Amino acid sequence: MFAEFEKYIREQAPVTDGDIKLFRETAIERTIRRKDLLLQAGEICRYKTFVSKGFLRTYRTTENGNEHIMQFSPENSWITDPESFENFTPSVYNIEALERSEVVMWTKKDFNYLFDNISGLKAYSDKLISRNLHRTRERVFSALSSNAEEKYDEFIKTYPGILARVPLHMVASFLGVSRETLSRIRHAQVKQ
Amino acid sequence: MFAEFEKYIREQAPVTDGDIKLFRETAIERTIRRKDLLLQAGEICRYKTFVSKGFLRTYRTTENGNEHIMQFSPENSWITDPESFENFTPSVYNIEALERSEVVMWTKKDFNYLFDNISGLKAYSDKLISRNLHRTRERVFSALSSNAEEKYDEFIKTYPGILARVPLHMVASFLGVSRETLSRIRHAQVKQ
Repeated sequence: MFAEFEKYIREQAPVTDGDIKLFRETAIERTIRRKDLLLQAGEICRYKTFVSKGFLRTYRTTENGNEHIMQFSPENSWITDPESFENFTPSVYNIEALERSEVVMWTKKDFNYLFDNISGLKAYSDKLISRNLHRTRERVFSALSSNAEEKYDEFIKTYPGILARVPLHMVASFLGVSRETLSRIRHAQVKQ
Repeated sequence: MFAEFEKYIREQAPVTDGDIKLFRETAIERTIRRKDLLLQAGEICRYKTFVSKGFLRTYRTTENGNEHIMQFSPENSWITDPESFENFTPSVYNIEALERSEVVMWTKKDFNYLFDNISGLKAYSDKLISRNLHRTRERVFSALSSNAEEKYDEFIKTYPGILARVPLHMVASFLGVSRETLSRIRHAQVKQ
């Protein structure tokens, strides 16, 4: 699991062999079975987590029991509830493995230690956070300005590989459109 | 303008007199007239900006000319397009003063210098970023799960002071509901 992370981080940031050693010494490796939860709403998100293999989703449930998907996380992506992680407050999110997954995790204390001792980490992290914020803002903009068909087209463009890995009702939940509407859009596109 | 920032940052982070001196030496102060733009779509967002006085909005325009408000920024808040600021790419956002405003700004180079030399700044910044990401995620969740009335109620609860400072059509644009729907909701609430 750490091997995938090492390959990834060497491509993304100017890290030395010594840096890799620090990452490895503080890393916690974990395998999650399909349908198991990595984080349950009400728990504190105690780890910054890198997905080495597999596929997870972050979702949130309304009071009346509806599930809304906030994020899909394939291999080579990070998954954390930053609010809960930063402030040690209970998370409102669930993180579930949609496929058998392998992750590498760091506690806040250890990640702060890495920040202080790996010089390229801050710049990489800043880039990652701004990309994350940018994508979240894009979703707000899309929710405000796009109709169901435009949302679906944007989704395919932004996350080309994901469509084949999730059932359609989860794509509908991510986009905030009904399953019926999404089916209609797809049928219309297939006909064209 | 800097005086308001100094008061604010002393309350928010454990800064020393020496830290304040560094902030002051690198700060750029600016006054923006009502309806003037601090940032125009297509420009690079070159500053991390603190609002000392006044009130601004960040908005984005669709190809067919519709405006969508992404953020309201009253005094004692930060306003930046992190994607553009981080990568020196043209911004898709406009930032406009809704009232005469006073801001304090730092370039990326200077802010990185502050990061390296003010020990409490990183922890403060992390907290700010995670709050920002949290609020943006809350908007995504709200867009996915709430009807117009719930969105309006959440807005009043989250931003209690803002309602009195912006015209109703801007609140509608922020919430992604039509002006007519919002008027109807408000009338119904007044009657109760």
